[in-house]
Amino acid sequence: MDKQYLSLIYKFFLVWSVSLNFLLFSLVISRNSELSWSKKAAAEAEAAASVSCSGHGRAYIDGFVLDGGKPVCECNGCYAGHDCSEVIPDCIADADSGNPTFLEPFWRKNAASSAIMVAGWHRMGYEFEDGSLTSKELEKQIRKLHATAGNAITDGKYIVFGGGSTQLLSAAVNALSSKVSSSPTKVVASVPYYPVYKSQTELFKSMNFNFSGDTMSWKRSSNSSMNFIEFVTSPNNPDGQLKTAILRGPNAKQIHDLAYYWPHYTSIPSPIDEDLMIFTLSKLTGHAGSRLGWAIIKDKNVYDRMVNYIDLNTYGIARETQLRALKLLNVALQGDGRNFFDFGHETMKLRWQKLRKILSASSKRFSIQELKPHYCTFSSEIRSPAPAFAWIKCNEEEENDCHAVLRAAKILGRRGRVFGASSSYVRLSLVNSQDEFNQLMHKLEMLVFEEATNSVVEFTLGDSEMRNRYYVPRNGTSASGKDSCESIEMAQINSQTCAAQ
Amino acid sequence: MDKQYLSLIYKFFLVWSVSLNFLLFSLVISRNSELSWSKKAAAEAEAAASVSCSGHGRAYIDGFVLDGGKPVCECNGCYAGHDCSEVIPDCIADADSGNPTFLEPFWRKNAASSAIMVAGWHRMGYEFEDGSLTSKELEKQIRKLHATAGNAITDGKYIVFGGGSTQLLSAAVNALSSKVSSSPTKVVASVPYYPVYKSQTELFKSMNFNFSGDTMSWKRSSNSSMNFIEFVTSPNNPDGQLKTAILRGPNAKQIHDLAYYWPHYTSIPSPIDEDLMIFTLSKLTGHAGSRLGWAIIKDKNVYDRMVNYIDLNTYGIARETQLRALKLLNVALQGDGRNFFDFGHETMKLRWQKLRKILSASSKRFSIQELKPHYCTFSSEIRSPAPAFAWIKCNEEEENDCHAVLRAAKILGRRGRVFGASSSYVRLSLVNSQDEFNQLMHKLEMLVFEEATNSVVEFTLGDSEMRNRYYVPRNGTSASGKDSCESIEMAQINSQTCAAQ
Repeated sequence: MDKQYLSLIYKFFLVWSVSLNFLLFSLVISRNSELSWSKKAAAEAEAAASVSCSGHGRAYIDGFVLDGGKPVCECNGCYAGHDCSEVIPDCIADADSGNPTFLEPFWRKNAASSAIMVAGWHRMGYEFEDGSLTSKELEKQIRKLHATAGNAITDGKYIVFGGGSTQLLSAAVNALSSKVSSSPTKVVASVPYYPVYKSQTELFKSMNFNFSGDTMSWKRSSNSSMNFIEFVTSPNNPDGQLKTAILRGPNAKQIHDLAYYWPHYTSIPSPIDEDLMIFTLSKLTGHAGSRLGWAIIKDKNVYDRMVNYIDLNTYGIARETQLRALKLLNVALQGDGRNFFDFGHETMKLRWQKLRKILSASSKRFSIQELKPHYCTFSSEIRSPAPAFAWIKCNEEEENDCHAVLRAAKILGRRGRVFGASSSYVRLSLVNSQDEFNQLMHKLEMLVFEEATNSVVEFTLGDSEMRNRYYVPRNGTSASGKDSCESIEMAQINSQTCAAQ
Repeated sequence: MDKQYLSLIYKFFLVWSVSLNFLLFSLVISRNSELSWSKKAAAEAEAAASVSCSGHGRAYIDGFVLDGGKPVCECNGCYAGHDCSEVIPDCIADADSGNPTFLEPFWRKNAASSAIMVAGWHRMGYEFEDGSLTSKELEKQIRKLHATAGNAITDGKYIVFGGGSTQLLSAAVNALSSKVSSSPTKVVASVPYYPVYKSQTELFKSMNFNFSGDTMSWKRSSNSSMNFIEFVTSPNNPDGQLKTAILRGPNAKQIHDLAYYWPHYTSIPSPIDEDLMIFTLSKLTGHAGSRLGWAIIKDKNVYDRMVNYIDLNTYGIARETQLRALKLLNVALQGDGRNFFDFGHETMKLRWQKLRKILSASSKRFSIQELKPHYCTFSSEIRSPAPAFAWIKCNEEEENDCHAVLRAAKILGRRGRVFGASSSYVRLSLVNSQDEFNQLMHKLEMLVFEEATNSVVEFTLGDSEMRNRYYVPRNGTSASGKDSCESIEMAQINSQTCAAQ
């Protein structure tokens, strides 16, 4: 009886175990058949993503690879070491470049839906199937995004892609300039203006157009026979103000640079419905390195001239970038864009709160731009703007080189004169990584506290061990005798950054 | 005894089954832990790749997606239908664009090693860690590739990336033009020349340079005080000849466009060691849609001016493109580049054999360029060139519009006049997909056979059922009464293709 019972138990377990065999086997088979050629690339990307950089950096698959086959960490400003765990002492806070990495955490959170796998044979040809250089699927997605954010009217308008907004700015100047007039079209912008308008217009030394400075100085001439192209940047770079065109009349044309007209940075009072509007992925999703911008154009002739320019200049932009943008905008659009835009807006709002709090402790030595709240149609509330840049002014007469004042306090901003303004202004970027923003706030706090107490104070960043190890007197050198931070920082801040927004 | 024996068998199988379960379970676990966030994108890419397009097309992840969620097939020229299985009757063979899709099969064969997974947060910033816009890893790979192919000396030279060679051509003209001379620098090229040299130079209407036609007409002036920039294209587009500079003297500078100086198309007699050499991924790996080119530059000042141009024009090129190129060149370099370059050369060699065989049946009505074999240092043998384009001449006086002669035979080439040559020449692209090449050969065969027999002949392409279904008389319309091929073809061949190499 006992044996029979045992036998029954064996039978029972055997049946159960064999069933489990089948189940597990089918699971193995199904997992196996799930992925084939793409597995290697996927595993490589995950391996790079899994490299620990202490939350102060990240490793990329195309980064420098160590002998062990692992890519090395690329650290945020003021962090160093193989895992970015070391704080560089007395380091300069770099707020020069408008590198929009504040959005990186959003994409890390949405890793699965924002990744793309590009096959070796993906879209090798010059053109898309319709003979154009632009993905119609991406174009559709862009139109949908503008309708969702409520920031621009795209109905009945043409869209052309370019290498960031950068390429589209010169394509637009080229397209709007008069071919028939004997004198070159005057390209103007309102002070303070994004300096690329000037340097790019002057680069080609074209007979069709030239840069003619501040818009205001031409206000009275706008009804003359002179031809004008006015850059209207709204919100403005550097000061975040919402702008409208100044020059009117039949010979004044406008390029509306709306790179920052998104709910991250500003309230959206109404959708813009202008003849030529330029946007960029950089300031929308933070993918500045992807170099994708788009122009929304009303007039077919202007569109044709811009397409012709892009054709002859670069023959369109990379297909893998268009694929990536399609995926990213897809994620941004989920839940009517709420998750994405709320993340952007909340981050920028908190940063501005922190900045205002620090500066409120200052006397009248420093001031920042005044920004008026507006009703935002996207969020259905009155919102204070939270622009990408703080436009700082040094108010004291003897501190008219504001850049030098901040530089002495180890803050690197962009000189006001670069924007056509006076040297008492400096632009500070607020869109960098959280680490870089924290460093900036830390240095600003030091500066303001120093003013309040009229004494040299050394605040610390990082843990106490690090502080003791690296403590250096103000304006002094590090314990090792070299101002290592200075040299590392200066190598990073080369002249190229001046072209980045 | 029997029962005991049975019980033993149960025990044996139970132990075996339980062990198998452990094994399968660990397999499931390991497979599960292998990939996480990247699985979705990998599965999407494989799903698109698995869409059957009958070998006459392919589906892309960013293509138009049907309701069922599957992307649709994009068919090779002259194929249609949801799975590209239908031959479009009496279709025009499009040999106009130099779309280098003949290399697609190589990348399909090397699917696992050529794919890339791009994380949502991959290189979002404007610059690389060193502050530049170019991947140093990719730069290293490019230098290695030139050393392997033996086609260019890169030692001690600078490298800058651009949006295809297209952007670098204008960057180079800009950098080499004189800033101080009172008269604009003359930009010249030898007839027949790649038409973009002219249209691009004229586009900017620069005061610094202008296009001044055929190099030969300036040969006697090259030692004057006039400044020249000479485009030297070797192998030449359109005729595949190896070229050297014509203008000499202190005021003559050269841009060496070496897009086709790879073992696919030509023997490599020796590495080129010029001051300014331009290459492109398009004609090397076939990834024309990725828009990546590079210039190899000797002089630091010229390099700086070109970098400045690229900065102000597009602020570099997409990071995902640089990642992709790194992966592709890695594959191309495997086994000292033998697999890759042999595939390219073998394909082109076979195409030229076929072309020559067909044309040899012709009388003197058509001729193609003469190309001399050279010793190739890469393959260590004497090789006949197999250039990307056939440069066809219609020899009969009454057929001086050669483009029209071929067009009547349903062959679309690029007019000789576009290249500054006479209208008795036509360029035919030999680098398109195998389908498109087959169509071209088929139409050429018809044309030559027609000449030989002096009668109208209808060859067929595709299976016999298709042939019967769609049979149409020459110059007639299709069975359905519409010349459907013509309209589809003409929609595909829009004006933009003229800018593609």
